Order: sequence, then structure tokens, then C-alpha cells
Amino acid sequence: MSLHVLHFRHEGHARWGVIRNGAITPIPGEFATTAQFIVGNPVERLRELDGPTIAESAVQWLSPVTANQQFICQGANYRQHMIESGMDPDAKKFNMLFTKATSCIVAADSPVVKPAHVRFLDYEIELGLVLKKNVTSRCLITEADLHEYIAGAVIVNDYSARDIQIPQMQFYKGKSYRTFGPIGPYLCLFEKSDMAKLGELELTLTVNGSVRQKDSTTNLVYGPAETLTEISGVHDLYIGDLLSTGTPAGCALSVPSPMKQRLAAALSEEAKWKMFMEIQAARPEYLRAGDMVESRISSRDGSIDLGVQRNHVVDEAS
Amino acid sequence: MSLHVLHFRHEGHARWGVIRNGAITPIPGEFATTAQFIVGNPVERLRELDGPTIAESAVQWLSPVTANQQFICQGANYRQHMIESGMDPDAKKFNMLFTKATSCIVAADSPVVKPAHVRFLDYEIELGLVLKKNVTSRCLITEADLHEYIAGAVIVNDYSARDIQIPQMQFYKGKSYRTFGPIGPYLCLFEKSDMAKLGELELTLTVNGSVRQKDSTTNLVYGPAETLTEISGVHDLYIGDLLSTGTPAGCALSVPSPMKQRLAAALSEEAKWKMFMEIQAARPEYLRAGDMVESRISSRDGSIDLGVQRNHVVDEAS
Repeated sequence: MSLHVLHFRHEGHARWGVIRNGAITPIPGEFATTAQFIVGNPVERLRELDGPTIAESAVQWLSPVTANQQFICQGANYRQHMIESGMDPDAKKFNMLFTKATSCIVAADSPVVKPAHVRFLDYEIELGLVLKKNVTSRCLITEADLHEYIAGAVIVNDYSARDIQIPQMQFYKGKSYRTFGPIGPYLCLFEKSDMAKLGELELTLTVNGSVRQKDSTTNLVYGPAETLTEISGVHDLYIGDLLSTGTPAGCALSVPSPMKQRLAAALSEEAKWKMFMEIQAARPEYLRAGDMVESRISSRDGSIDLGVQRNHVVDEAS
Repeated sequence: MSLHVLHFRHEGHARWGVIRNGAITPIPGEFATTAQFIVGNPVERLRELDGPTIAESAVQWLSPVTANQQFICQGANYRQHMIESGMDPDAKKFNMLFTKATSCIVAADSPVVKPAHVRFLDYEIELGLVLKKNVTSRCLITEADLHEYIAGAVIVNDYSARDIQIPQMQFYKGKSYRTFGPIGPYLCLFEKSDMAKLGELELTLTVNGSVRQKDSTTNLVYGPAETLTEISGVHDLYIGDLLSTGTPAGCALSVPSPMKQRLAAALSEEAKWKMFMEIQAARPEYLRAGDMVESRISSRDGSIDLGVQRNHVVDEAS
């Protein structure tokens, strides 16, 4: 049975606690990083935790993934989002990986700041997986042993400045602005028996109450086992690191189909990107100051509920 | 006057030392990270360091940049390298930024391991700058105050799997393989009066003794001050972090001109990348097991000399 924890600040201290019926049972000890928290708190022991509780309303949320960890993301990992991003799902035969600078990490209820020079700010709800094990050499990770590698799950919003990311082909720069990575509120810790539910989580993102993204992790293209296997053959992973698994369709971004892109390829770079900008400028879905973005991920049976992210869009202070 | 330090292992301990006339004067204390070393050792104090020395041949080199730091890179930052990479230097009007996973960092004399599935392993000598100051908000950094932000310089080789990086448009994945980031041997620490020399360093890379890359930092497109200014507006930087400033021309990579790419754009994705692979396969410059890559960066007057990197290319053990 899964168990939900919260990282929070209370009376000046950063603490961790188990969430039960809307109240927090604080976990004894201080754990400065996600890695330290995971190593120090096996699920079985947390399940037996008892003691006085604190109301959730009395604390300040913190990100359950700390800034020392790696923040690795999969791109274009839902078929329909590939299409809206201008890719041909049948031609793209590789798992796209990139990182966000971890100074973009904020709590789940943080405002998201639209930088002054960014015109096209977009949202991307994603399921984030938090690692349980160091992986320092190439290995084969299967569905059957995934529970040894994944400690739990969180909501991630991979906010993206499309006018930087796409014309400059720069995922890192366009997605690393401060506040572009709200994480949490809850870290749901799994046991082996919960792992099947990973493939059936429902993601919903609304802007000002209207549904923009709604999909299920059933539709992930590259699953966690094969993705972790691939990364293990490239670089090291550490306990507490975050793998964000990509976003479903419904973003503000609209990129012409590969066929139209091939026709546009005869244009100069300048004309091509001018056209791209004009298409985006006609999309009212891009975020503006005052918008409220809400993100939810849960299992249909309610046994996994990663909570609700609420990000108010604000302009960068001048 | 610049001063050169080495991070090394000796008698089972990781230490730092000042290099003078080919001998090491060990610096008292243990500094687990580059940040701790820089904070704990102002140049003025190191200059006065005295005591018994160790021969360089008696120690094992370690990277002067530790794996906890950020490893940020500039792409296509020398005009001629842009052209060989298939870009039009007059059309590209942005600074390209990406990261390498820090588990790719190795000592300057480490072998570089060619992964079994990688066909096109390429070299990229780069000047790396190590930060002296935390930058946690947007700020304007000018040539005049660059010495407050940059502690010193190192040689970086940004080894790249071109068959991953280019067809998959994945700088992170193609450049993050283990051993793909030798750093050092020396970290040259600067004082204010050394900063002008940053723009006149000479880079030379040879493969099996033949010169492949030879250029000067005079030809950098986006200089350190404007690049750090730009990054400060995106994400945080910390003491000890590494900014690798891009590589000059002379890589094995060969990408058709933008004009030819526009003609090829009518092809299917599959046909286009098949053509790319055929062009690369005809390039004998790509690295093979047994090759020896040597990299040197120094100032013409010899006052700055970052040492010599020697990386023997080996195949991944099967």
C-alpha cells in the first residue's frame, strides 16, 4: 500500500511528515536532501509512525525533491503531444532526454514567474519518479524489479518558454528559468504491490478551471524500466534523483506537421521562425499574468493521490 | 599573477596542491568539493604557501571540478565550428547552452571509453571557466568585474557521440556518457590582472600527434561576461561550477551547409539521417580504440599553462 509524505517548513524548520486524513504526522529527524530522507525512512517503518499531528494549513510546502538531485526529463513521450510538437510519432525512434537546472525547482503552490522577454509560456503536467537506488553502471531494469529502483512519484510541471526552446532548439535554456519546476505537493512512496498502478495514473491540468491536459500514464511511449535501462548505459543516477516522464497533449504549443515543415524548409531560417512566432501568437492558450494553473495526478481507485499543484502566473518584477 | 593548482590523490587521500617548477606543494586541509577549495583558499594566501613538495609523478590526478558542481556548456561558439556543424553563423543569433551529466567527469589522463553502440566519437577541446561567486538573480556582468565571478580556468574535452547528438538533436544524451568529460590537469587561479589573457589563450588538440584543432579564445563568439549575464537571468550559478566555452573548428563532424540542408529537407527523416550517417562514415577523423588525444591550452607568454590532457581511446568492455 502506497504512503504519502510531505516536505514542509514549520516553525522555522524543514521537516518531513506522513499525510493521513489531511493531517501531518511529523517524521523524527532532519533530512536535508531527498536522498537522505529516502535512505533514512523505509516505507514499512513510516507506516508504523504515530504521534501528534499538525494541520496541513499550518505549514509551508517545500519541494519533495531537493535542488542537489538530478532533474532529468523525457521529451515527447506521449503520442499526441509529439504530433502537436510537430513530430511524426512513427519516425521518431528514440527516447528524448534533457535536464532542467535545479534552481527552477519550487514548491507546488509557488507562483510561476514569466520572464519579461518570454512571450510564449507553456505548461506541461508530468508524472515524476524519484529514485531509490544508485545506478553507476549499465544494467537491465525490468518491470519486475522496478520497485527496487523507484521510491515513489510526484507531480511535476515542466513550464517551458516555447520561444526559446523551439526556435533555438534549446530545451535546457527554455525550461530552466527560476520557478519553471514546481514539484509536489506529495511524494507517494511505493511498495512492490503498487508498481502496476504506475501505468494507470490519471493526469489532469486546468487553466482558470478549464481542462487543458487530461491523459493516463497508460499512453507513455517509453516506460520507466526501459528509460532507466537506457540512462544507466549513459550516466550515473543517484538516490533521490528525479525522472520526469513527459507530458500529454493539450499544451499551448502548436507546431506544423512534419509534411508542412518540409515545405517550409525551403524558407530562410528567419522566415521560418517568423512563421512559427506568428502561429504561436495566435494561440490564446499561452499563459498570462493572472492565470491559475492546477495540476492533479491520482489513481482511479484513489489509493494514489499526489495532491494538487496551484501555480499563479505572475510577470517578472521589473 | 596566475597560480596553478592540482587536485590529486596521494597515499589514499584526495588533496590539493600548488604547482611550481613541476613539483607540488600540498595545501593544508581537505576540500571535498571545488566550491570548498575555492572558498577556503584565496589566491593571495596560496601564493605564500611554503613547505615540502611531492613530485608530480608520485600522485594520481583528479578532476579539479568535482561532480557536485554544475557542468554547463556553450555550443557552436567559434565561427568555423558553426560552419562545420552545418550552421550559418550569420543566421544563428543566440547563445546555445546545454549540460553534461557530471558523472562524465574524469581526470585529465583518463582513458575515454567509446560505448559499444556509438559509431562516431568526436573530440572537442574547450576552455572551461570555474566560478568564484554564487549568482542567484539576474545581474549584469561586465569585462571590468569578470574577475569577481571567475576563479580560474581548466582544459575541458567535451567528447561527443555525434550519431546520438545530431540525428536525435540530443546534446545532453550524446555528450554525457561516462568518461566524456576529462577536466584539468591544472586549475589556473586568476587575479584581476590576469583577466585580459582569458581572451588570448591558445588551444591545441592533436590525435596521434597530428594537429586537429588549433585556435585562440580571441575567436569566441559569446564571451564569458555576456554569457554569465545571460545565464544569471535564467538560473542560479554556484561557486565551483564549470562553464565550458565551446570548441573551435577541426572536429571530425561534418554537416552539410544550411543551403544543402534546405535541399535535403524534402527527403524523409529516414533518408535524411541515412545520408548524414554516410557522410560521417566517410570521415577517418572519428576516434577509434587505440587513438591518443592530447589537449593543451596556454597563453603565448607561458604565464598561463593549463597542462596537457592525454586520453587514450578504448572500447567499452563487453
